[in-house]
Amino acid sequence: MKKFNNTILETLPSRYRANLINSCTGYKSLNLIGTKSSNGQENVAIFNSIIHLGSNPALIGFTFRPLTVQRDTYRHIKETQCFTVNQVQHSFISKAHQTAAKYPTEISEFAATGLDTEYLDGHKAPFVKESTIKYSATYIREHFIAENGCVFIIGAIQNLYAPEAHIAPDGWINLTQAHAVAGIGIDGYAFGAKTTRFEYATPYKEPKIKP
Amino acid sequence: MKKFNNTILETLPSRYRANLINSCTGYKSLNLIGTKSSNGQENVAIFNSIIHLGSNPALIGFTFRPLTVQRDTYRHIKETQCFTVNQVQHSFISKAHQTAAKYPTEISEFAATGLDTEYLDGHKAPFVKESTIKYSATYIREHFIAENGCVFIIGAIQNLYAPEAHIAPDGWINLTQAHAVAGIGIDGYAFGAKTTRFEYATPYKEPKIKP
Repeated sequence: MKKFNNTILETLPSRYRANLINSCTGYKSLNLIGTKSSNGQENVAIFNSIIHLGSNPALIGFTFRPLTVQRDTYRHIKETQCFTVNQVQHSFISKAHQTAAKYPTEISEFAATGLDTEYLDGHKAPFVKESTIKYSATYIREHFIAENGCVFIIGAIQNLYAPEAHIAPDGWINLTQAHAVAGIGIDGYAFGAKTTRFEYATPYKEPKIKP
Repeated sequence: MKKFNNTILETLPSRYRANLINSCTGYKSLNLIGTKSSNGQENVAIFNSIIHLGSNPALIGFTFRPLTVQRDTYRHIKETQCFTVNQVQHSFISKAHQTAAKYPTEISEFAATGLDTEYLDGHKAPFVKESTIKYSATYIREHFIAENGCVFIIGAIQNLYAPEAHIAPDGWINLTQAHAVAGIGIDGYAFGAKTTRFEYATPYKEPKIKP
């Protein structure tokens, strides 16, 4: 067991520290956020910080790193209030990873990486056609993280699309069957193998696996 | 492809909606948060919302559901400013799941579920002995999510412990090798099979898999 105390953490080389701290929090969701600026510029970028914030209303949250450099996704969301969230799946992980490259603002990462746009049900922002689990969303609010300058965005889910074959009778989506990918750290992609579900936990009863 | 528009989402049975919305955001980290009240009551509970917020300083964030009912973990953190975060691993998922059961405040979920406490390096809150990837943390601040009454907590990582064998030379932790588990929805546990890492993405270059 290796131990890093907080003095050691502060003195680690920054890339080492970033890898370590980004891994120790556990697996991450991997999603592509699609946006379109008010003058029509499309953009898509990978995010590993999207979390569930609530089901009713259906809310998500995610973070932007400090806005000290231009962040096209952020600017487009603020201009249009619209974005899409598209789960990264096995068949297009290298394209999804490549959206993280720093292309100039006037370059669409869709075109640059070979991902296809798709417009659905009148939503202004483009979806990623290759992704089968995705939703349109609108900007609700942001919280400034004073400790490091990051911004935590809250969004509301509008239209949700998912493959019928992988939705359980009770609404649960089998992400592993749908070949969705989890993130580890900054650059790791993990593919699920096996999934277990448990019944609702009740005090003093053995946890039961769902059939 | 099944579509749920936001009117349909609002009218779904609440359990179905909770399963669906909790799955559509992607894989989740699964961690046990260990706490101890100011009068010595130990507590451990599973959380699937912990995210990385920053590496320097090393910060994490996670959410509590509305504080309209007593939440022992929240109360202990506010009383002592201390907690531990312990990644859920394959060997103890059913015990980890069982910590979600609503035990009375005076019952330690460690004792009730058979998880072992461990105290390390003078930190006041108990660790989960069975977990090999874990850290002590201190409370920094909270943001109230006005839209649904949830609370987003920001914590600072203090001492970090991880298995040396699964830390890559550049600091990345191979969570799959360490048998860490990802969450799907509210009650799903997914085990990684294979992991791929990519080199830093550069415009106009093919993404390269790390050797």
